Amino acid sequence: MQGATNRVIDAGAQYESGKTRPEKDLLGERNVPYEAYYGIQTLRALENFNISGIALNFYPLIISSLAMVKEAAARANRDLGLLDSVRSAAIIAACREVANGKLHSHFTVDMIQGGAGTSTNMNANEVIANRALELLGHNRGEYRYCHPNNHVNLSQSTNDAYPTAVKIALVRGNGPLIQVLRELIQSFRRKGQEFAGVIKMGRMQLQDAVPMTLGQTFEAYAVTLEEEILRLEENSRLFLEVNLGGTAIGTGINADPAYANLVIRHLREITGLEVVRAENLVEATQDTGSFVMYSMAVKRLAIKLSKICNDLRLLSSGPRAGLGEINLPPLQPGSSIMPGKVNPVIPEVVNQVAFKVMGNDLTVSIAAEAGQLELNVMEPVIVQSLVQSVEMLKNAMVTLKARCIDGITANEAHCRQTVLNSIGLVTALTPALGYERCSLLAREALEQDRGVYDLVLEQGLLDRETLDALLSPEGMVEPGSQRPLRRNDHPL
Amino acid sequence: MQGATNRVIDAGAQYESGKTRPEKDLLGERNVPYEAYYGIQTLRALENFNISGIALNFYPLIISSLAMVKEAAARANRDLGLLDSVRSAAIIAACREVANGKLHSHFTVDMIQGGAGTSTNMNANEVIANRALELLGHNRGEYRYCHPNNHVNLSQSTNDAYPTAVKIALVRGNGPLIQVLRELIQSFRRKGQEFAGVIKMGRMQLQDAVPMTLGQTFEAYAVTLEEEILRLEENSRLFLEVNLGGTAIGTGINADPAYANLVIRHLREITGLEVVRAENLVEATQDTGSFVMYSMAVKRLAIKLSKICNDLRLLSSGPRAGLGEINLPPLQPGSSIMPGKVNPVIPEVVNQVAFKVMGNDLTVSIAAEAGQLELNVMEPVIVQSLVQSVEMLKNAMVTLKARCIDGITANEAHCRQTVLNSIGLVTALTPALGYERCSLLAREALEQDRGVYDLVLEQGLLDRETLDALLSPEGMVEPGSQRPLRRNDHPL
Amino acid sequence: MQGATNRVIDAGAQYESGKTRPEKDLLGERNVPYEAYYGIQTLRALENFNISGIALNFYPLIISSLAMVKEAAARANRDLGLLDSVRSAAIIAACREVANGKLHSHFTVDMIQGGAGTSTNMNANEVIANRALELLGHNRGEYRYCHPNNHVNLSQSTNDAYPTAVKIALVRGNGPLIQVLRELIQSFRRKGQEFAGVIKMGRMQLQDAVPMTLGQTFEAYAVTLEEEILRLEENSRLFLEVNLGGTAIGTGINADPAYANLVIRHLREITGLEVVRAENLVEATQDTGSFVMYSMAVKRLAIKLSKICNDLRLLSSGPRAGLGEINLPPLQPGSSIMPGKVNPVIPEVVNQVAFKVMGNDLTVSIAAEAGQLELNVMEPVIVQSLVQSVEMLKNAMVTLKARCIDGITANEAHCRQTVLNSIGLVTALTPALGYERCSLLAREALEQDRGVYDLVLEQGLLDRETLDALLSPEGMVEPGSQRPLRRNDHPL
Amino acid sequence: MQGATNRVIDAGAQYESGKTRPEKDLLGERNVPYEAYYGIQTLRALENFNISGIALNFYPLIISSLAMVKEAAARANRDLGLLDSVRSAAIIAACREVANGKLHSHFTVDMIQGGAGTSTNMNANEVIANRALELLGHNRGEYRYCHPNNHVNLSQSTNDAYPTAVKIALVRGNGPLIQVLRELIQSFRRKGQEFAGVIKMGRMQLQDAVPMTLGQTFEAYAVTLEEEILRLEENSRLFLEVNLGGTAIGTGINADPAYANLVIRHLREITGLEVVRAENLVEATQDTGSFVMYSMAVKRLAIKLSKICNDLRLLSSGPRAGLGEINLPPLQPGSSIMPGKVNPVIPEVVNQVAFKVMGNDLTVSIAAEAGQLELNVMEPVIVQSLVQSVEMLKNAMVTLKARCIDGITANEAHCRQTVLNSIGLVTALTPALGYERCSLLAREALEQDRGVYDLVLEQGLLDRETLDALLSPEGMVEPGSQRPLRRNDHPL
Repeated sequence: MQGATNRVIDAGAQYESGKTRPEKDLLGERNVPYEAYYGIQTLRALENFNISGIALNFYPLIISSLAMVKEAAARANRDLGLLDSVRSAAIIAACREVANGKLHSHFTVDMIQGGAGTSTNMNANEVIANRALELLGHNRGEYRYCHPNNHVNLSQSTNDAYPTAVKIALVRGNGPLIQVLRELIQSFRRKGQEFAGVIKMGRMQLQDAVPMTLGQTFEAYAVTLEEEILRLEENSRLFLEVNLGGTAIGTGINADPAYANLVIRHLREITGLEVVRAENLVEATQDTGSFVMYSMAVKRLAIKLSKICNDLRLLSSGPRAGLGEINLPPLQPGSSIMPGKVNPVIPEVVNQVAFKVMGNDLTVSIAAEAGQLELNVMEPVIVQSLVQSVEMLKNAMVTLKARCIDGITANEAHCRQTVLNSIGLVTALTPALGYERCSLLAREALEQDRGVYDLVLEQGLLDRETLDALLSPEGMVEPGSQRPLRRNDHPL
Repeated sequence: MQGATNRVIDAGAQYESGKTRPEKDLLGERNVPYEAYYGIQTLRALENFNISGIALNFYPLIISSLAMVKEAAARANRDLGLLDSVRSAAIIAACREVANGKLHSHFTVDMIQGGAGTSTNMNANEVIANRALELLGHNRGEYRYCHPNNHVNLSQSTNDAYPTAVKIALVRGNGPLIQVLRELIQSFRRKGQEFAGVIKMGRMQLQDAVPMTLGQTFEAYAVTLEEEILRLEENSRLFLEVNLGGTAIGTGINADPAYANLVIRHLREITGLEVVRAENLVEATQDTGSFVMYSMAVKRLAIKLSKICNDLRLLSSGPRAGLGEINLPPLQPGSSIMPGKVNPVIPEVVNQVAFKVMGNDLTVSIAAEAGQLELNVMEPVIVQSLVQSVEMLKNAMVTLKARCIDGITANEAHCRQTVLNSIGLVTALTPALGYERCSLLAREALEQDRGVYDLVLEQGLLDRETLDALLSPEGMVEPGSQRPLRRNDHPL
Repeated sequence: MQGATNRVIDAGAQYESGKTRPEKDLLGERNVPYEAYYGIQTLRALENFNISGIALNFYPLIISSLAMVKEAAARANRDLGLLDSVRSAAIIAACREVANGKLHSHFTVDMIQGGAGTSTNMNANEVIANRALELLGHNRGEYRYCHPNNHVNLSQSTNDAYPTAVKIALVRGNGPLIQVLRELIQSFRRKGQEFAGVIKMGRMQLQDAVPMTLGQTFEAYAVTLEEEILRLEENSRLFLEVNLGGTAIGTGINADPAYANLVIRHLREITGLEVVRAENLVEATQDTGSFVMYSMAVKRLAIKLSKICNDLRLLSSGPRAGLGEINLPPLQPGSSIMPGKVNPVIPEVVNQVAFKVMGNDLTVSIAAEAGQLELNVMEPVIVQSLVQSVEMLKNAMVTLKARCIDGITANEAHCRQTVLNSIGLVTALTPALGYERCSLLAREALEQDRGVYDLVLEQGLLDRETLDALLSPEGMVEPGSQRPLRRNDHPL
Repeated sequence: MQGATNRVIDAGAQYESGKTRPEKDLLGERNVPYEAYYGIQTLRALENFNISGIALNFYPLIISSLAMVKEAAARANRDLGLLDSVRSAAIIAACREVANGKLHSHFTVDMIQGGAGTSTNMNANEVIANRALELLGHNRGEYRYCHPNNHVNLSQSTNDAYPTAVKIALVRGNGPLIQVLRELIQSFRRKGQEFAGVIKMGRMQLQDAVPMTLGQTFEAYAVTLEEEILRLEENSRLFLEVNLGGTAIGTGINADPAYANLVIRHLREITGLEVVRAENLVEATQDTGSFVMYSMAVKRLAIKLSKICNDLRLLSSGPRAGLGEINLPPLQPGSSIMPGKVNPVIPEVVNQVAFKVMGNDLTVSIAAEAGQLELNVMEPVIVQSLVQSVEMLKNAMVTLKARCIDGITANEAHCRQTVLNSIGLVTALTPALGYERCSLLAREALEQDRGVYDLVLEQGLLDRETLDALLSPEGMVEPGSQRPLRRNDHPL
C-alpha cells in the first residue's frame, strides 16, 4: 500500500555506480544505467509501468521461453541469409545464456503493462542485443553492430513473438504442474489403501447416509484428481499452435515467405515441443482462446482441490466437538493454551489459493473478452494471471502432499462407532432384513436414541457374526456385492 | 434447451383471432395482432429478441415504474403547453391503468434486449398510446390522435426514461426486500433469546475452541444481517438521482428548459420518492455506478446469508455422525428408507440463490465496464440481473424464515455435553486456575481421552458448584465478566 | 420484484376444479390437486421452493432425459425380475409419453431447489407412476399398484438418477447448440468470401496498423468459432460417463450387482448415446467436474462471440463519425428523428448474453466448489445455470446469424480510401522501397497530413500500376507473398 | 512457474553467517537464524507457506498497523497492571520501531497463509518481543524476559489483533488512494475546461447521435470519479468498527473486563482514527462484511476507470482510420517503422489493473462466503487481494494522470468537421426548423452522402450566423438552453 521501499521492481537500485550510457529511440535520447543489459525502451517501460511490483523475472520460464523464440528467429534469419553468421552466432549464444538464467535480473519490466507485450519483447531484444554485442567484442549500446529491432527482432513483431513465447512458457510449466499433481494423487491413493479397512459413515448433504470406507474417500480424491491430468494435458496442447511468422496482425507482412515454416522448425528443435504454425495467422494473432481454456482447466483443478480441502477440514474437525474421523499432521501451534489444538492450516491455504485461481480466471475471461479487432492488447494481464495461478497451485499441491496428506491418520475406532451407532446402518441391512423391518428398526433407533447395531442383536434378528460380515469394509467397496433385493421384498 | 413450446414469451399466442391491424415505422409496414395494445416497434422487438424467455411482465415493478415516468412526463408536457389537456388526460389515465397492473400482459419484450432499453421504452409508449386512444374514443393504431413517440414519449428519450424507470423500480423493490430481511432478523433474534441458556462449543477453523452460547450464535446472525439494512438503504438511495430531462446523451436536446425540473417534481409526487435530478446529466446518462453499487450491496447480503446457511447445515449435521447441535424443521422426506433423515433443503436452496446473486453481480460488473462513451447500451442485462437477484433473494429469505429458522430447535443436552467433554473448556477455567494448571489439565485430558470437567472434579481443583458457575451461559455472553487475569498468573 | 401474479410457476392455478385427492408420505397427509399427475412430494417441493419462478418445464430436454433414465431403470428392473412385466410395461409407456412431451406441464418444481435434485427426481417418479396407474386402469394416487419410490425409482437414488438425467440432457442439447454454431460459422465464412476483395486497414490497439482485407476479418471469425465446435464436442463427451447404478453416494447399496451394467446398456439403447458407467462410482457421485468443464467451454464460446460482436459494433460505428467499414442490417428504428440511425441491437444483445453466460459460469464454479463429502448438493443451481447459458447462447447465435451477419454489407470505397490515406501503408511498401525510404515517407505523411499513396506517386517512387499491385487484396491474404526482404535492405 | 531462485521470499537467504539460536514451541525445538528478529513460529510459517512469493513486507502499511495494535495492547495491559512498566516500555519502543519501518525485512511470512492470520500475528509478536529483549539488554530468544505470546500478545488473540490491524491498514491506505484519485479528477476537470470550446459528436451505441463538447466528455469523467471519493470514504469507515478485546471468537475470554475499552482508547490515540469497538464482538469476529463492501467500492472505481480508459482508447483511435478526436501523449515507440504510431499504453494498463481488481473482488467474495461458524479463516487471502487491488489502482491512477490525461490534446478541427458533416446535427436544429423539415434534411443528407450543415446553407433555411450560433459549444452544455419546442411543431 505504501512506499516503494520494499517493491520487487526497482529500476536503478541495483546499479550503484551511477554511470550511464546514452541511448535513443523515436521519442528521443535517454541515459540508461551503464551496467544494464536492457536499453532505452525497457527503461521507458520501467517508468511507464510501475504497477504491480512484480517483474518479469518473477517467472523465469517466461524469460527462457522468450530466449528460445529469439533463438529460433535468429536461426531462421541466418538460414535465409537475412542475418550474417557472425551476428547470428552471437545472438544465438546470448539467447542461450538468457535461457539458462544468466541474465534474468535484467528482465525487470512489470508483468502488467500496456502495449500488448511490446515492453516484454523489447526487454528481451535489448538484453539479447547487448549481450551479443559483448560477445562480439563491442560495448553495450553499440547497436549498429547488433540492433535490438533490426537484428534480434528481425522478421518478428511483438504480435507474434510475445504470444508464442508465453504459450511455450505455459506448456513448459504444465509438465512440472502435472508432476506435482501426480505426486499428490499418489499420496491420496496410498492413503486410500491404508484406510481400506476403516469403515465410516458416508454423508449426503452433511446428513448421515450409508456406510462406506475411509479408503473409498481417499481413493475418490485420487480418481477425481487423475482426471485433471488429462484435462491439463489436453488443454495445454492448445498452446502448441502458435502464430510465429504472422508478424503484424498475422499478415506475415515483411517476413520472407519461407520464414514462417523455417522458424517453426527451429522452435520445435529448440524447445523439444510439437509446436505447429496456426493455419490462419490473422485468427491466431487476435485469439486468446487457448489462454482462456487452459485457465479454466487450471480453475477446475483448483475447484477440485478446494472441495477436497473443505472435506479434509470437515473430517478432521474436533477433536471432540467435530466429526473427528481423521487427524491432520500438526504443523504449527494452533493456540498457546490448548495443547491439542491443531489447525488445518494447509488445507486452509490451499482453499485460499483456489480462490485466487478463481479470481485470476475471471481476470483472464474479462481480458479475453476485451480484445479488439486484430489484436488482444490485454495479453499481459492474461499471462500474469495464468502463470500466477499455475505457480501458486503448484506450490499449494507440493505443500498439501508433503505437509498434510502424507501424514493423515484415521480415528478408526471412532469411525466404526459412528457407523454402528447410526440409523443409516439399516440401509446396509435391507438386503438381509427387508425394507419394512428396516424401516421399523430405523424408527425405533431414532425414537429410543439407540444404535441399530444393538437393536438388531437385542431383537435376535441377526447374530453378531452375520451382522459384522454385512458391515465389513469388503462389502462396502464392492457395489452390489450384497445379496440382491428379491422382488417379494417389496410391499405392494 | 429445446423448442419454444414452453417459453414464457409467445408473441402471438394469446391472440387467437388472427385478426391484425397494419402499422408502420421508419423501416416499413407490419401487421400487429388486432387485440394487442403494443404496436409495430414492440412487434419488431419480439422478433428480434427471442433470447431469455423472460419478458418484462415477469417483473411488474418495472412496468409500473415505467408508467410513473410516463405520467410525470405527460404532466410536465401538459404544464408547459406541449401536450393539450385532452390528450394528456388520456395518457395519464392510461399510465395509471398500467401502473395498476391492468395491461401487464402486453409488456412482452424480452428483458434481455439490444438497444439500451429502446424496446422496453417503446413497449410502454405503445401500450400507453393505444390505451389512451381507446379512452379518447379512437381505435388502437390511430396514432394521429395520440402517438407513442410524439406524445407519450414527448420530451423524453430512451436514454433518460428507461434508466429513470428502472431505478425507481429498484428503489420501490428495496422496501419489500428490507421488510423481508427485517422479519428474518427478528426470527434469528427470537432464536437468540430462546437459546440464550444453551451452552455449546465455539469453534475456530472448525476446531473446538472455547465455550459460548447457542444464543450468541443466533444473535450474531441477527446483528450481522441488521447491518445489511443500512447498506441496502444507503446504496438504494443512489437510485434517487435520475437523469430524466437529459433526453439524448444528457444534452437535454429538444426539451424545454423548464421541463427537467418540472418532470422531476411530478415524479416525486407520483412515486412518493425523494427523486432528484442529477447535476451533470451527461455523466448521469452514461454512468451505471448506482446499479453496480446496489448489486454489490445485494451480493453482500447474499454472501452473509450463504455463510449463515453453511453454518446451519454444519450445526444440524448428523443426526449421529455430525455436529448435531440444532435441528432444522423437517419439510420433505429426505430418504424413502431412513425415517429420521431430514435434509437441510432450505439452507441449501438459499446457498444456491446466493451463488446466482454472485453470478449476477459479475454480469452487472462486466456490463457496467462495457459501457462506451455517452451511453451504456448494456443496461438491460444489468437490470435483468439485478431484479432477478432481488426477487430471488426475497423469496429465499421468506422461505428461510418461515420454513427453517422459526422452527429450529436445540439439542441442549448434547451441546452442553460437548463443552464438558472438551479440552477447550480449560480456556474458561484459566482465570480461576491459571495458565500452567490449565495447560497440564488440557494435556491430561487429551492424552487420557477424558473430559476436563471430570478431571477438575476428580482432582478436587474446584467444587462442582464453582465449576458450573464458571460454565454458566451468563458468564459466556458477557465478555470480560470473568475474574481478570492477575499479573502474577504469568510465569516469567 | 413484486407479487406472484405473473410468475411462471403457479402450483394450483391450472386446476380450477378445486377437487383434490389425499396422499401421504413420511411427514403426513396432504391433499393434492385431483387432476395433477404429480403427487405429495412434488406438492411439498412446490411449497418449499418458490424461488426463481422458473419451473422444470422451462427446459423440456431435462424432462425427457429424466424419462429416458426412468425407462432404462424400469427395463433393467424388469430384466432382473425386480419388476413384473405388467407394471414395467406401464412404467415404460408412461416414460415414453413424458419423453414425448405429453406431460410436461406437470413438471412444475422450481429449477432452483434444495435437496440435491430430490424434488426433480420425485416429480418425475410421481408423474410417471400416476400415468402408469392410469394405463393400468387405476386412479391417480393408488400407489399400491405402482409406487413412485418402490417401482419407478427402484434400484435408483436421486444421487444417481438426477445427475445422469441432466448430463444426458446436456449432451442432447449440445448437438443443437453446435448446429446453430455451424450455421453461424457458415454465415461468417460466406461473408469472408464476399469481402475477399475489400482492402481495409488492420488495427493494433485500435491504432492503424497495416492493410488487410475485410474478407480476412470475417474468415478469422469463422475460424475462431470453428475451434469451439471441437471444444464443445470434446467437453460434452465428459457427460457420457454417468453414475447410474451407484445409488446412495455411489456405494451401489441396495442395487442388484447385475443392475449397473444392465441399466447402462438400456440407457445407451434408449438415448442412442455412448453412455458409460463411471469406474469409480463414489467419485462420480460427488464430482461435478464435467459440469464445470462444459460450462467453461460454453463460456469460451460466449467470450469469443462477445469479442466478435464488439468488433462488429466498432466496424459499423458511424455512419459518419465512426469507423464506418461495414453496415449492419437495420432491424428497428434507432431514433425517431434520425432516419439513418441504425443501432447495432443484435450484437448488443449477444454481448449481454455473453455477460450472462460469464455470470452463470461463476455460479457453476462456486457451486462446484461448495460440494461437500459424498454429494454436491448444489447441483440444481449448476444445472439451471448451465442450461440457461446454453439456451440463451443458442438463441443469441440464431439471432446473430439471421438478423445480423447474413445482411452485413461493406463500405468498400471507404475502406480502400482509409488504406490509401494511411501511414501504415508504408509497411506494405517496405519490401519494395526499403526501411529507410519508408520511414521517411511515413514521417512526411504524418507531418504534412498527406496520404502515403499520393506521396509515392508524387515523388515518382513507384508507378501507379506497381503501387496498386502491391496493395491488391491478393497480396494481403497470402502471408509472405510479397518480395522478401533482402539482407542489404537493413542499415547496419 | 519455475524454481525459487527469483522468489521474493527467501527465509534464510539474508542470513549468511549460518549461525542459529534454538527455540521451542509446543511442537518441539528448532534452530532459528541467529540474526533473525522473528522466532520459531515464523520459521514454521515460512516453511509451511511457500505459496505466493509475496511476503508481508510487500505491504508496509500492514506491518506498521500491526505494530500500532500491539502498542495499544501493551499500553492497556500496562494500565491494568498486567504488564510491568519496564517490559511494557520496551514493547512499546519496539512497536514504534516497527511502525517506523525499521524491521520490515523481518516480516517475511507469505501473505497467503493458513491459520486465519496466526502466522502474521506471531511474526509481529516475535519480532517485537526480540527487539524488546534487545532494548532490555537481553539476547534475542531469551523469551523468559519478554515473551511473544505471554507479553506481546497478552490479552489478545489472532482472532482480534489480526483483523483489527488489517482494517487499520486499509483505512490508512484509503487516504492516499483518495488523494491520488483527487489529483486524477483535477486533471480530468482541467481538460474539461480546456476543451470546453471543442464541439464534437456525441454517440449512442457507437452511432453518431447529437453534438456535444469535448469538455463535457472530460467533465463527465471528473464528475463520475468524484462520486467514488464519497463511496470510498463511506465504505472505508466500516473498518473503524473493530473487534479488539474480543480475544477468542469474540467471547472476550481471558481478557480483563476493563481491557476492551481501554485498548480501543489507546488505539484511537495511536492511530488518530475514530476506531470504535464493535457492539457484538462475536458477530464482529466472524464477519468479513467490511472487507467485502470496501472491495466492492474499489471494484466500482476500477470499473469506472476501465470504462473511461476504453473511451480514451476509442477517442484516440486512428490516427487516420479511427475516431481521431483526441491525442494521447506518446510514451514509447509503438512500432519501429511507423513514426506516427502511438499506442495508448497507459489506458491499456489501467484496463488490465481493473480486470485484476475485478478478479480480486471475486476472490474476496468467495473467501467471505467460505467463512465458517465463529471465524473466517480465509481472511489472509481477503487481505492480500484487497491491498493488492488498492496498491495497483493507486499506481494505475498516478500513471494515468501524469502520463496520459495531463498531456491529452484535442483534434479540434476534426471534431468540428464530423459534427458539421453529421446527420445527427439535425437534432440540434429541430427547435429552429421543426421535426418534419429536419427529417427531410436528414434523409437528403443520408441519400446524397452530404453534410446537413451544407444542405441547410444551400437551401437557405438558415444563414450561416444563425446556424453557427445553434452549434456553438455554449448551446451544447446548457441542457434546454435552446428554444423550446412549440406544441404546433408536432404533426398530428
